[in-house]
Amino acid sequence: MEAVAKERIPRYLGIARGIEKQIREGTLKVGERVASLRDLRRREKVSVSTAIQAYLHLERVGLLEARPRSGFFVRIPHAEMAPEPRAGRPPCRPTPVGLGAIVQESVAAASDPGMVPLGAACPGPSLLPNRSLNRIVRSILRENPLHSARYAHPAGLPELRRQIARRSPELGCNLSPEEILVTRGAMDALGVCLRAVARPGDVVAVESPTYYGFLQALETLGMRALEIPTHPRGGMDLDRLEQAIRRHRVRACFAMPSVQNPLGYVLPEAWKRDLAELLMRHEVPLLEDDVYGDLAYAEARPRTVKSFDRKELVLLCGSFSKTLAPGYRSGWVSAGRFQRRVERIAAVMSVAAPSLPQMAVAAFLESGGYRRHLRRLRSLFEIQVHRVARAVARQFPEGTRVTRPAGGYLLWVEIPGRQDARELYGKALARGVSILPGTIFSPSARFRRAIRLSCGYPWSGTLEEGLRVLGELARGGISGAGRVRRAGA
Amino acid sequence: MEAVAKERIPRYLGIARGIEKQIREGTLKVGERVASLRDLRRREKVSVSTAIQAYLHLERVGLLEARPRSGFFVRIPHAEMAPEPRAGRPPCRPTPVGLGAIVQESVAAASDPGMVPLGAACPGPSLLPNRSLNRIVRSILRENPLHSARYAHPAGLPELRRQIARRSPELGCNLSPEEILVTRGAMDALGVCLRAVARPGDVVAVESPTYYGFLQALETLGMRALEIPTHPRGGMDLDRLEQAIRRHRVRACFAMPSVQNPLGYVLPEAWKRDLAELLMRHEVPLLEDDVYGDLAYAEARPRTVKSFDRKELVLLCGSFSKTLAPGYRSGWVSAGRFQRRVERIAAVMSVAAPSLPQMAVAAFLESGGYRRHLRRLRSLFEIQVHRVARAVARQFPEGTRVTRPAGGYLLWVEIPGRQDARELYGKALARGVSILPGTIFSPSARFRRAIRLSCGYPWSGTLEEGLRVLGELARGGISGAGRVRRAGA
Repeated sequence: MEAVAKERIPRYLGIARGIEKQIREGTLKVGERVASLRDLRRREKVSVSTAIQAYLHLERVGLLEARPRSGFFVRIPHAEMAPEPRAGRPPCRPTPVGLGAIVQESVAAASDPGMVPLGAACPGPSLLPNRSLNRIVRSILRENPLHSARYAHPAGLPELRRQIARRSPELGCNLSPEEILVTRGAMDALGVCLRAVARPGDVVAVESPTYYGFLQALETLGMRALEIPTHPRGGMDLDRLEQAIRRHRVRACFAMPSVQNPLGYVLPEAWKRDLAELLMRHEVPLLEDDVYGDLAYAEARPRTVKSFDRKELVLLCGSFSKTLAPGYRSGWVSAGRFQRRVERIAAVMSVAAPSLPQMAVAAFLESGGYRRHLRRLRSLFEIQVHRVARAVARQFPEGTRVTRPAGGYLLWVEIPGRQDARELYGKALARGVSILPGTIFSPSARFRRAIRLSCGYPWSGTLEEGLRVLGELARGGISGAGRVRRAGA
Repeated sequence: MEAVAKERIPRYLGIARGIEKQIREGTLKVGERVASLRDLRRREKVSVSTAIQAYLHLERVGLLEARPRSGFFVRIPHAEMAPEPRAGRPPCRPTPVGLGAIVQESVAAASDPGMVPLGAACPGPSLLPNRSLNRIVRSILRENPLHSARYAHPAGLPELRRQIARRSPELGCNLSPEEILVTRGAMDALGVCLRAVARPGDVVAVESPTYYGFLQALETLGMRALEIPTHPRGGMDLDRLEQAIRRHRVRACFAMPSVQNPLGYVLPEAWKRDLAELLMRHEVPLLEDDVYGDLAYAEARPRTVKSFDRKELVLLCGSFSKTLAPGYRSGWVSAGRFQRRVERIAAVMSVAAPSLPQMAVAAFLESGGYRRHLRRLRSLFEIQVHRVARAVARQFPEGTRVTRPAGGYLLWVEIPGRQDARELYGKALARGVSILPGTIFSPSARFRRAIRLSCGYPWSGTLEEGLRVLGELARGGISGAGRVRRAGA
C-alpha cells in the first residue's frame, strides 16, 4: 500500500523527503545552509518552481527556515523531530459503525475547561476576534432591534450567502449565493448531506483515520463505513478507493482534502483532480469537508476538489467554527446537484438557522478583516503545532511517530509498545489532561496505539506540563500522580 | 365518528354547547344576561365548579363576557359567528407522506414580509419583548466577552436547562435540568425525537389535520403517517387510535394536546390522562408538541400529557419561538426513557446549540418577566383571533366554518362549495395575501376545502383588506384584481 501511495507523490515532495531524510539522519545539521535553489535545480533536474515548492514545503513542516538573501537553513535539530506515521492497512470492507458512548464521553471531557486542552479541536478563545464580533453584534442590536423577531430565510441570510459566494473563487469555485445553504455548523451540513445522498444500510467510503463526528453521523443514520487506506501525507489510496467502489456499491465518499482531521495533510492539486475524476467516472458523490481549509499554512488558500467537479457531484461543507466563533454554530454547504434536496431537508429539520450569528458573520466578512485574521491565525497555529510536536519528540518514548500537518492545529501521534490508546486516554483524564484516543477515528476501532492532540491553545507552562505527563504515561510511567492545574486559560 | 367523540365530552362542555346553540339560533341575544351560576347549577344539576367551567369556557371562546358583580352576558351577535368545523373521517391506514414542493413554497411565501401575514404561524414582531432581549444581549457582551469563543455544552447551557426545569411544575411535571436537552427550536427537537423512536418505514399516528412540519419530517425520514379522526375540540378519537395501534404496529404517536396546530383546541385534563393511559397500555411513545401551550387563554397553564406518564414514554417538546424570539431558534425536549438517545443524536448532528441565544433566553426567564409577558400576549392573541374570526364570518360565503381556538393565534376555516384550497391559496398569493392551504395538514392531501389563517399580527387596515380579498376569492369572485399593499409592518 505504501508503494502505491509513493508512486503518486509529486516530484517536489520526493525531493523534500530526500532532504528530510538527510536532516533526520544527521547528514544535514541544524543551522546548516542547504543547497541553493540553483544547485538544487541542477542536481535534481527540475524547474525552479519545483525546487521552490520543495523548500517551501520543508519550511512549512518546520525543517528549514528561509533567511532573506542568504538561502534556506536547517531549523529543527533532527533529534527533536519524531518520524512520521505510516499508512495503515484497514480491512477494505463495509463496517457498521459502533463507536458507542466513548466518543460522547471524550468530547465532553475535551470541552471541560478545567482540563489541559489537548482534546477538543477548538482554537484558544483568546485567538478569536471576539472583540470585533461583539462590536458588530452591538451595532446590529442598535440598527435592527427586531432582528430576532422573525424567522431567518430557510436557506440562510441572503447577505451571508453573498459573502460566502464572494470568497468562493479562493476555493477555486465560482458559487452564486443561490448555490449556498447556511447551516448550523459544518456537522449539521454533513448530516444533511448524508441524508440527501444515502439511506440506512448504504456504504460510504472514508479516509482512515477519519473525523469521528462523521462516523457518528453514519452510525446514527444506520449507514456503513468503508475505510480506504490513507497515507499521512498523500490521503486516500485512489486505486483502493476505485476497487472499493467497484466491489461494494459505494454510495458516497467523505474526505477532508485540505487539512485533514486528524492527519493534517493538504492534498496536492493534481491529486484533488484525480479524486474528482475518479468520482465523476463512477458518479459517486463526494462530501468534501473543508472546515480547516482556511487554516492551511501555505500562502495560497488550497483549492477544493469541488473546483475540479464538472458533474455537480461534490457537496462542499464549510464553517466559521474553527476561525471565528465556535459558539455561533455557523456553517454552510454548496451541494451541486443535490442542492434542492439538501435545502429541503435542512428547512424541515430546523426551519432556519438563528439570525444574529448569521448577521454577525456576514458583517465580519464584509468588513474585510477575515483575510488578515486568517493570516495571523495560521502562523500562530503553525508555531503552536511545532512546539507541541517537538515536546512530543522530547517527552514520548523512542519510536513515537508524529504527523507533519500542512495546516490547522491537530497532531496525530502513534506511540510504540503495547499501551492501549483508550487506557492512555483514561489515565490522562484522571491526571487532568484531555486528549482523544485514536480508536474513535475508525469505524473498526483501529489506531489503538494512536492519540490525537489539539494544539489550538497558545503555548503555556500548563500545556508543557500536560505534555510531560502524557509522555510519562506513554512510557508506561506511573510516578507523580497529581493532576495538572491549568493556570488562567 | 362524531358520536364517538361526543360521548367523551365532559359535562361542562355539554352545557356550554347547549348555551352556544341558543346563542347561535338567536334564542339568546347579544347583550342579554344568561342564567346566574346558581340557576345554572340547579337547572343542570351540576356542581358550582362545573357551572363555572361552562361559563368560563363560553367566555374563552368569546360568546359570553363576565361583568363584575352582574354575571355573564352574551357578547358576540350570533350572526357574527360562523359555525365550527366537524370532525373528518380520514382513511385509517398508514400513508407514505408525499407533500412535495407546495409546503416549501407556501412557507416561503408565508415568510415574505411584503405579504399580508395570514400565512406563517409567527407572532407580530412588535408583540415580542425585543427591547428586553436586546438589553440582555448587551449585558452578556459586556460581562462575558468570550461568549462565542467556545462550543456550548452539547445538551445545552446548564443555566437555561435549569430555568426550563424551574418552570416545569406549571406543565404538571417536575423535571430536573438533566432531563432537559436544549435544541434549535421545537422542529429540531421533533426531528431528533422521531429518529430516536422510529425508523424508516415505521408508522406514526397523527392528528388529522396535523402540523405540516411534522409531516415533512416524516417524509424526509421515510416514515409513514396514520391519520386518526380528530374532533375540532375533542382531539383524536381514542378508540380509533387504539384500533390503529392494534392493527398497524404504530411505532409512535404525535400530538399537540395543548393548543393544537391548526385546530387550536386544548384537550381537557381527563382526556389527556386517557391518552397517556392508552399509550402506556400499548407502550407507544408520544411526541408531545407543546410549543403553543404557554399561549392557552385559560388562566391556568394547561398540564401536559407527560404529567400523566408513569412509563417515561412521553417526549415533550417546547420552544421559545412562539413567545420570545423566532430568530433565536431556541427549543427543548424532555424525552423520558429516550433522553440519552435523543441527546446522542442531537450532539452528533449539531455538536451544540448556539450560545448567545441560549444565554439570552436563560437570563430572560431568570428575570421573571416571562409570565407577565405571556399574560399580555395571550390576551392580545385572543382578541386578534376573535377579530379575524368575525371578519371571516362577515366576508366569507354562507356555510363557512371556523374553529374556536382555546389558545394561540391560529384559525382553521372550512369553506363550502367546490373551490379548491390550493387554488384559493394561489389566487390569494397573487393578490398579496399569504395563507396556508388545508391540504398540507394531511399526509393524504385531505382538507381541500380548508385554509389556515394565522392571527399573530395586530389587527390593521391591511389585515382587514386582506380578509376582504380572501372572502371575495372564497366566494369565487374575481373583481378588483389589485394587490393588497401592506402599510408599515
